[in-house]
Amino acid sequence: MAKEKKVEQITDMEQDFAQWYTDICRKAELVEYASVKGFTILRPYGYAIWENMQRILDGEFKKTGHQNVAMPVLIPESLLKKEGELVNGFAPEVAWVTMGGSEQLEERLAFRPTSETMFCDHWSRVLHSYRELPMLYNQWCSVIRWEKTTRPFLRSREFWWQEGHTLHETAEEAQAETEQQLNCYADFYEKVLAIPVVRGRKTEKEKFAGAEATYTVECMMKDHKALQGGTSHYFGDKFSRAYDVTFTGRDNKLQYPFQTSWGATTRMIGAVIMAHGDNNGLVLPPQIAPIQLVVVPVAQHKPGVIEGAQALRDRLAAAGYRVSIDTSDNSMGWKCAQYEMKGVPLRVEMGPRDMENGQCVMVRRDNGEKTFVKLEELEQKAGELLQAVHDGLFEKARINLEEHIYPAFSVEEAKKLQEEHGGFIKTMWCGDLECELAMKEKAGMSSRCIPFQQEHLADTCACCGKPAKTMIYWGVAY
Amino acid sequence: MAKEKKVEQITDMEQDFAQWYTDICRKAELVEYASVKGFTILRPYGYAIWENMQRILDGEFKKTGHQNVAMPVLIPESLLKKEGELVNGFAPEVAWVTMGGSEQLEERLAFRPTSETMFCDHWSRVLHSYRELPMLYNQWCSVIRWEKTTRPFLRSREFWWQEGHTLHETAEEAQAETEQQLNCYADFYEKVLAIPVVRGRKTEKEKFAGAEATYTVECMMKDHKALQGGTSHYFGDKFSRAYDVTFTGRDNKLQYPFQTSWGATTRMIGAVIMAHGDNNGLVLPPQIAPIQLVVVPVAQHKPGVIEGAQALRDRLAAAGYRVSIDTSDNSMGWKCAQYEMKGVPLRVEMGPRDMENGQCVMVRRDNGEKTFVKLEELEQKAGELLQAVHDGLFEKARINLEEHIYPAFSVEEAKKLQEEHGGFIKTMWCGDLECELAMKEKAGMSSRCIPFQQEHLADTCACCGKPAKTMIYWGVAY
Repeated sequence: MAKEKKVEQITDMEQDFAQWYTDICRKAELVEYASVKGFTILRPYGYAIWENMQRILDGEFKKTGHQNVAMPVLIPESLLKKEGELVNGFAPEVAWVTMGGSEQLEERLAFRPTSETMFCDHWSRVLHSYRELPMLYNQWCSVIRWEKTTRPFLRSREFWWQEGHTLHETAEEAQAETEQQLNCYADFYEKVLAIPVVRGRKTEKEKFAGAEATYTVECMMKDHKALQGGTSHYFGDKFSRAYDVTFTGRDNKLQYPFQTSWGATTRMIGAVIMAHGDNNGLVLPPQIAPIQLVVVPVAQHKPGVIEGAQALRDRLAAAGYRVSIDTSDNSMGWKCAQYEMKGVPLRVEMGPRDMENGQCVMVRRDNGEKTFVKLEELEQKAGELLQAVHDGLFEKARINLEEHIYPAFSVEEAKKLQEEHGGFIKTMWCGDLECELAMKEKAGMSSRCIPFQQEHLADTCACCGKPAKTMIYWGVAY
Repeated sequence: MAKEKKVEQITDMEQDFAQWYTDICRKAELVEYASVKGFTILRPYGYAIWENMQRILDGEFKKTGHQNVAMPVLIPESLLKKEGELVNGFAPEVAWVTMGGSEQLEERLAFRPTSETMFCDHWSRVLHSYRELPMLYNQWCSVIRWEKTTRPFLRSREFWWQEGHTLHETAEEAQAETEQQLNCYADFYEKVLAIPVVRGRKTEKEKFAGAEATYTVECMMKDHKALQGGTSHYFGDKFSRAYDVTFTGRDNKLQYPFQTSWGATTRMIGAVIMAHGDNNGLVLPPQIAPIQLVVVPVAQHKPGVIEGAQALRDRLAAAGYRVSIDTSDNSMGWKCAQYEMKGVPLRVEMGPRDMENGQCVMVRRDNGEKTFVKLEELEQKAGELLQAVHDGLFEKARINLEEHIYPAFSVEEAKKLQEEHGGFIKTMWCGDLECELAMKEKAGMSSRCIPFQQEHLADTCACCGKPAKTMIYWGVAY
């Protein structure tokens, strides 16, 4: 008999949320640290989650006419510098290639921190007529930003993402694109990741370097900290002018096109961990789970049990589910703990008694609920219970979000609420940078967004007492 | 009416094959040059071909149990240097990151030229027991090799590829993996890309830096030059020892695992261009064609024609084909030339007369053959004709390969045959490096491979007259 494998323990989230998070990243075998400081390795299980996210998002992008491309990873410094705000925003975080083989390069090359400049440079050479617009491009790649402190998925020097870059004939079309793609992210979070989001606009201070406007989806983690889920930027014709991208318009005159970009990253995996995980490990929303159901035979030494379990597995696989089976000689306790750690949405148990009764037992990862399932209803019930897991996760996350949004009417009150409860603190705001900086300095919170769904809480700014322009959400963010 | 668009002209391949190749790359909108020397941009149409290649290959890799991962793109110099042969092989072509933000790095970091070192470093930390073997990993990414002269797809400083890296308990298993993956590439070339290949082993001189053995699939282009299509490497336990990768074996003792790697790149797109293209442009094998059929209405101003063509398109799309329609006001001549340039395997024409007769016309890109298709047989005939295009391409490429393999019995004869006919020159070989160098120097040919399918042409080496060990293929290669 094999030696009993130890069930891996993780820190309780109530005790140390940060350590709990790191424990899950490692023990669920999502990532491993690399020997290069600040870089991580996406292991097979972590990458499989990313692949599912990519497949679904990529399908959505293509439905709305976007096409994938691949731009060079290195950007000449002179090209990067053509748009001043962008380079100022990213320069401190750029990794520079200065040598090719044994020769010193004449001009150093930036490892892309983001690719607006490359797209503009390309467009300046291929765009001619309004007939070629819109250009709806996307690429899946990795980028580097030389961060000082790093954490798996949330902040690492290299991360994987998609960056959409589009070019339009009119400002209105570009604005509509920005909105459409923000909604695409919001739907993905809510309908696929089971994480409710707040949609809104970033302040001038928090917007993307070089953008005219940045829109965001913001989520709430289980420790009541905020996480920026995905962003969509409107550039107007600013980059077009800087990079001399022009086209002949319907009026036969040269015009500057209007531009957007939008991105979502592997940090979505971090969001899933912190929105749904528990003290037994990861909890995965079914649509992105590499394994949606795992079949675990009970008393598998009894005759026919393994064969019965394999038949279950085969039926579920044939029905299109991502299903796995564990007939190893590890103990039942170890197996259950292992698949809980890995966040598999449904565990399917079948033992000798179940076989006699023509049934199996499905155990939900999100709440431990057991359901006896008649074998003739196997495929249908699997689908229903996976949907129930998704709905259950979303509902818990929705309550977590809604119960942690607090109105405040002064910086002091905002500070107190944040310290006591965490979450989003909503206040009225005059729109001035000074008040935003004051909230950061005195209450330790950054502005998260100016939600599209506005409420009128008061007439005056919570910070300075001047007339308020908008309601704004503040929070402590990852 | 819109101004008549000019049909783009390309150079004839008989006149200047290299220019013909570049013309197709640009005019079919596959790639564009970037502003960084030696780097290219994969445009939507080129990238869509790559996506189809990726999807099919990735599916094959997964069927045999491989899992995708993502390794860091930067490799510390000290890590890269642990295995001497590898670093000697790649050092002259490495791009080095020496600065992160504004700080000079203590150790320079290589942009990966290939990732054996990263995989070994990772495995040295996560592998414990024989129970965890084999580890069957793959990653899709870009790599940089600082080449002096570059050509789209064939040789560029950055290219896109997959690199498989696997670890096994025994040498036999690793050897079997190397073989399996080589056959995977061979099948992909023949059954998907419609390009016949010669399978064989590389000589010591031509093998991958650090490998014990390199296996290859070699193809023949229309100009009778050779192209290395994909390679699979056996490392023995050489890297395991260099990087201290160990596991506890079945005998409870520490052992070194056996390793393989295998890769195929965007150069496969170059192979498709040069194996199938003609003087009207690209010719795409149906399985990787972004558009498999394009519907072009004839006399589309006549009532009902556009609607009829759209109905055709809808039916073909519903049947799962990648289909497009062109109802633009460009001329029929322009449209035909355009889709020929882009290599669309089947053009579907329908005009008023066809509608009356309940038919359409399908025109094959590979040979211009027209087939009248009854509408009730639309979906079935589309499938048959796409298969016919694949078969037709393969057959032409097979003849091109088989008719350009020439036996030679001296270096002089080999040189003469190469100069007169190109192709593969097959000779007997003693196995000595000196003879390989002589063939290069005197006849301008590199060894392509020692084919698995051996023939006994003579008893002695064509170069030195000593007893021959094997038959070998020589050629001028891309």
